[in-house]
Amino acid sequence: MTTERVEIAILGASGYTGAELLRLLASHPRVHIGALTAERQAGRTPGEVFPHLASLSLPRLVRIEEIDPARFDGIFCCLPHGLTQAVIRELPEGPRIVDLSADFRLRDPALYEAVYGRPHVATALQEIAVYGLTELYREAVRGTRLVANPGCYTTAAELPLAPLLKAGLVDPDRIVIDAKSGVSGAGRDAKLGSLYAEVAEGLHAYGVAMHRHAPEIDQCLADFAGRPVTVSFTPHLAPMNRGILATIYVDLAPGAEAPDLHAELRRAYADEPFVEVLPFRGIPATRHVRGTNLCRIGVHPDRRPGRAILVSVLDNLVKGASGQAVQNMNVMLGLPETEGLAAVPLFP
Amino acid sequence: MTTERVEIAILGASGYTGAELLRLLASHPRVHIGALTAERQAGRTPGEVFPHLASLSLPRLVRIEEIDPARFDGIFCCLPHGLTQAVIRELPEGPRIVDLSADFRLRDPALYEAVYGRPHVATALQEIAVYGLTELYREAVRGTRLVANPGCYTTAAELPLAPLLKAGLVDPDRIVIDAKSGVSGAGRDAKLGSLYAEVAEGLHAYGVAMHRHAPEIDQCLADFAGRPVTVSFTPHLAPMNRGILATIYVDLAPGAEAPDLHAELRRAYADEPFVEVLPFRGIPATRHVRGTNLCRIGVHPDRRPGRAILVSVLDNLVKGASGQAVQNMNVMLGLPETEGLAAVPLFP
Amino acid sequence: MTTERVEIAILGASGYTGAELLRLLASHPRVHIGALTAERQAGRTPGEVFPHLASLSLPRLVRIEEIDPARFDGIFCCLPHGLTQAVIRELPEGPRIVDLSADFRLRDPALYEAVYGRPHVATALQEIAVYGLTELYREAVRGTRLVANPGCYTTAAELPLAPLLKAGLVDPDRIVIDAKSGVSGAGRDAKLGSLYAEVAEGLHAYGVAMHRHAPEIDQCLADFAGRPVTVSFTPHLAPMNRGILATIYVDLAPGAEAPDLHAELRRAYADEPFVEVLPFRGIPATRHVRGTNLCRIGVHPDRRPGRAILVSVLDNLVKGASGQAVQNMNVMLGLPETEGLAAVPLFP
Amino acid sequence: MTTERVEIAILGASGYTGAELLRLLASHPRVHIGALTAERQAGRTPGEVFPHLASLSLPRLVRIEEIDPARFDGIFCCLPHGLTQAVIRELPEGPRIVDLSADFRLRDPALYEAVYGRPHVATALQEIAVYGLTELYREAVRGTRLVANPGCYTTAAELPLAPLLKAGLVDPDRIVIDAKSGVSGAGRDAKLGSLYAEVAEGLHAYGVAMHRHAPEIDQCLADFAGRPVTVSFTPHLAPMNRGILATIYVDLAPGAEAPDLHAELRRAYADEPFVEVLPFRGIPATRHVRGTNLCRIGVHPDRRPGRAILVSVLDNLVKGASGQAVQNMNVMLGLPETEGLAAVPLFP
Repeated sequence: MTTERVEIAILGASGYTGAELLRLLASHPRVHIGALTAERQAGRTPGEVFPHLASLSLPRLVRIEEIDPARFDGIFCCLPHGLTQAVIRELPEGPRIVDLSADFRLRDPALYEAVYGRPHVATALQEIAVYGLTELYREAVRGTRLVANPGCYTTAAELPLAPLLKAGLVDPDRIVIDAKSGVSGAGRDAKLGSLYAEVAEGLHAYGVAMHRHAPEIDQCLADFAGRPVTVSFTPHLAPMNRGILATIYVDLAPGAEAPDLHAELRRAYADEPFVEVLPFRGIPATRHVRGTNLCRIGVHPDRRPGRAILVSVLDNLVKGASGQAVQNMNVMLGLPETEGLAAVPLFP
Repeated sequence: MTTERVEIAILGASGYTGAELLRLLASHPRVHIGALTAERQAGRTPGEVFPHLASLSLPRLVRIEEIDPARFDGIFCCLPHGLTQAVIRELPEGPRIVDLSADFRLRDPALYEAVYGRPHVATALQEIAVYGLTELYREAVRGTRLVANPGCYTTAAELPLAPLLKAGLVDPDRIVIDAKSGVSGAGRDAKLGSLYAEVAEGLHAYGVAMHRHAPEIDQCLADFAGRPVTVSFTPHLAPMNRGILATIYVDLAPGAEAPDLHAELRRAYADEPFVEVLPFRGIPATRHVRGTNLCRIGVHPDRRPGRAILVSVLDNLVKGASGQAVQNMNVMLGLPETEGLAAVPLFP
Repeated sequence: MTTERVEIAILGASGYTGAELLRLLASHPRVHIGALTAERQAGRTPGEVFPHLASLSLPRLVRIEEIDPARFDGIFCCLPHGLTQAVIRELPEGPRIVDLSADFRLRDPALYEAVYGRPHVATALQEIAVYGLTELYREAVRGTRLVANPGCYTTAAELPLAPLLKAGLVDPDRIVIDAKSGVSGAGRDAKLGSLYAEVAEGLHAYGVAMHRHAPEIDQCLADFAGRPVTVSFTPHLAPMNRGILATIYVDLAPGAEAPDLHAELRRAYADEPFVEVLPFRGIPATRHVRGTNLCRIGVHPDRRPGRAILVSVLDNLVKGASGQAVQNMNVMLGLPETEGLAAVPLFP
Repeated sequence: MTTERVEIAILGASGYTGAELLRLLASHPRVHIGALTAERQAGRTPGEVFPHLASLSLPRLVRIEEIDPARFDGIFCCLPHGLTQAVIRELPEGPRIVDLSADFRLRDPALYEAVYGRPHVATALQEIAVYGLTELYREAVRGTRLVANPGCYTTAAELPLAPLLKAGLVDPDRIVIDAKSGVSGAGRDAKLGSLYAEVAEGLHAYGVAMHRHAPEIDQCLADFAGRPVTVSFTPHLAPMNRGILATIYVDLAPGAEAPDLHAELRRAYADEPFVEVLPFRGIPATRHVRGTNLCRIGVHPDRRPGRAILVSVLDNLVKGASGQAVQNMNVMLGLPETEGLAAVPLFP
């Protein structure tokens, strides 16, 4: 570990995940932000694009071709899905890269094409990319130069399920994931469906049985189940800025009981600073992790024998995106994993 | 059917369901509101308790012993659970009664005692009470003098499931109901958990696997499945005033496919003014039924073969409480079923 | 007054004010909606554009050139500012027109050009247009064929101030109007500033001292003061769908006291169905008029002698737009003024 | 300045301001929290009362008589108004005290009694208490042992106005302050008026011309005007958790123009880390200071000559309460003033 500062660039810094990286890195004692890119906003200061960042000392936004990527120790890539793979393909080998898009999350090129409707243009990189759910893939993250940072829904689903599948405590064939997200997960694009008046005071499901996060969840869970997994997954849009809550219904493996699930999760995450397994029957709430890299998990017996209910919460912009990205970059660069991620939740 | 006005009393008119009854009945051409009771608020006008009702011409709130129940054609009872049964036991036989509490929803006294922790004090009435999910029990509602108006969660769960169970299209043993409610469902009591700052900008589950609505759902679904049913049911509190959304995961019966479920629901509700089955794969949203007695249902195939996902929405204060109560009273009194319930949704 | 239905068209029916007209007119017993136009949405049903209207029986959206305007008794025009004047100029003389845009609100062509940055293209119509704050200009509304429907902020400011200026009770030179609006006032365009994540959980002023509603307020108040008026006016965006609240600070005329203001407003609006002057020191709230055509006004003495504070609230989409438009159309067509406007507020 | 940790106690730690102190002090490198008191919650852990604080290492809540106040360097007092003065009267002379209640804000015992309806019981302390608007009274704060921490509304009003009154740029007799607050300012008591369903999706004024913060504003402004001041002040409740926005209407002194006000504020706060004067005509928003100790100020010319409009924003729980309390304690204990207060705003 070095005591010097590492030099960091953020590509696509004008969206919510870019702004959240800036917020988190502002309290990171070992990071210097050397460059910020944004295409349409090039030339503006971060404070002009995000007034809440106006008091930070940050470089002006530039176009991507104006920077020399080779001079950075780490690059966060917050570009749109699809575009990202072409950009990362051209980056030099030196800097460690955390990609917040979906481009490198699916390992199988055929599956990628099936889900996203076009062939992947950087399949060689796809092979070396490591899926960056830090707690589950830490050693692989440490050794790679390209991390595919997981999606927000998927992190909320995989953290409670992976250890249980690995321990053989739940039936991999009967997993139901009912997930609810705040609106910032839809990004900062001006879309009808993200308008205040279209979102406030209401609730709806979307992408029912078709959301692109589902194959990503399957892939991760299969790693831990040791066999293919297909989950039921329904995302919902909730009238709040931040937060993901996943309610997960599982069938217990023969002989297993809900307290066994709780004990296994407690054991699996005993030393993890960012995963909190609540006391048995504990009720997590998204507002209690707001602004932090925490994932909180509750375990409940179902009223039907042989089943259990898991509830997990996180902040979609932190543990679900930028916070986990910082966590991964810390691991890749040999920095303490919690640097920049010590905030206490903001409530109310 | 009479062209005269029927005389109505509301017991316990100072909560949200009482206020909602007043809002709905204000546009009901055949109802005259003759008495309103409230214990702590007795002596005040409805407009003092609910300023949004100040321009209505309504009787002052009185204590329950100040009214003569025998002079009313219909009585809506919005009293707290537990207290209700003792009050209704003393009412005369003349007026038709719609009870919005949970006191008469469970038919089995032993189950009632197990769920609510005390014996029922009006078991004779419990026997004659009809469960008032109007679309499913209309003929029984027509013939009774006491309707137990269903809960909000249960209405949202039972309307999509009952016809499918009756038709044998889904497996009664594997039903998962993930439900989300607005805050008005918790009533107007000043409780920490209902404070703005404790609810806004966040989401949590509560009563996981233990909510009192679950046995009520089981009872209703068993009527249509023709055998006992035990559902998985998790309620969540969402940061919005009104609305229930239930996401329901079902296993298909052998040979059945998701379009069969859709066709059956379309058939079952073809003539129902308050149930709208959306086109296949349609996405219902709570905000699109706000203020109305509508329940909207969407049917989706799951990504896992052999399963389907149903989504239903309603306004918890209308179809989930006071609107359905008016609908039941209309049926009981021989009035057109839709009187007082014609509002167009208020959006945004 | 006729007992036949009048035939109505809505031009530009795909925005929030158009949808709100449809909601209100659905309960109007004397109106038949004969045509709906929308340029980009032409060919779709209203229910496709606004799912909450899906159960209404309404004509499909068409382009404006597909309709014959001459066959309508009344036309509501919900087109964008600027475009409107060119469209209305081409309409035949028969139908009564209520224009919800700002195009005909300012009478003085020079002022119009100064405020909107371009010359008016229908100055002849500008001369005959009547400013449709119904309670204040009812007789003129009755006699015209073109009503300029007032803006939401201006209605909230003018209803409390006009009678007081007319009675000489307040100083026309020292009026401060601090106004707060819900987000639906910004329309349904997909703009960054209207996104949920940019609006929720926060508050800001906008258009400080420069908002285009200010000259409109000046013009109306001058009519009643009998001399020029220039107000201080600051609009704010509040995180709510609907509602305008205007807090108005006035200097009392010599000899006048706050109770005199209250008495004058009570007198002025004694017979008005849509203006409620609360008891002295009463506190109006936007949520208590939600969904209705009501304006509620409270009058308070200031803690500084010689001053008073007026607070008015209304629903920006109803009394601030579509409800007042229906009210004006009722007046113009000789229908009862309250038809279609009888809803009870939706709270919570 | 010492490099050792100072020992801190918080009296009344179970409300929102207490929780916010804990959040802020968790990142304060020189503070050790040695005791937390709460009467009804005594015996519980902070994490049981505030789940968002569950991962902090903190002492259990105890009753006030269980602690020895003499062993603390600093005491934050978050007790209810009225009760506070009796408690502080009994504290020993050693520790520095920051009182977040209103008990010591008004210096004049007669005025205190007039405003709060009962005589002050610790008038001797009232004399030595320093009003802790840090930027305006820093030297006095440094020298006292008892700081009366200002209210949230008052901080938002005084920061923009005090320098302008001192410089003689605005007329002290014609100040109008229209202020809007988030709901957390009402505290964590379970009150009807703080319920989600009573607050969400609406806006109202309260305490019009009678709010207890008004005399506090008068007192502070008089210090800077050098003569008595009486302001017009109207608070409003906005549907958001955090944030105060004050819109302030002023008459310019003869010869002064709005840019002069801007220049003076820029000069006055040039070296202040927590006050940001935006560029002339800048628009501050509460969401852009969320979670921080920042106050942002915008200056605008009015459309009426001779007047200007100031807009200030802050987070009512931070600069409006607990953040300013930490700032004051830092000053009193000789610690760097910004310790524990470095957070970047949380947006969205």
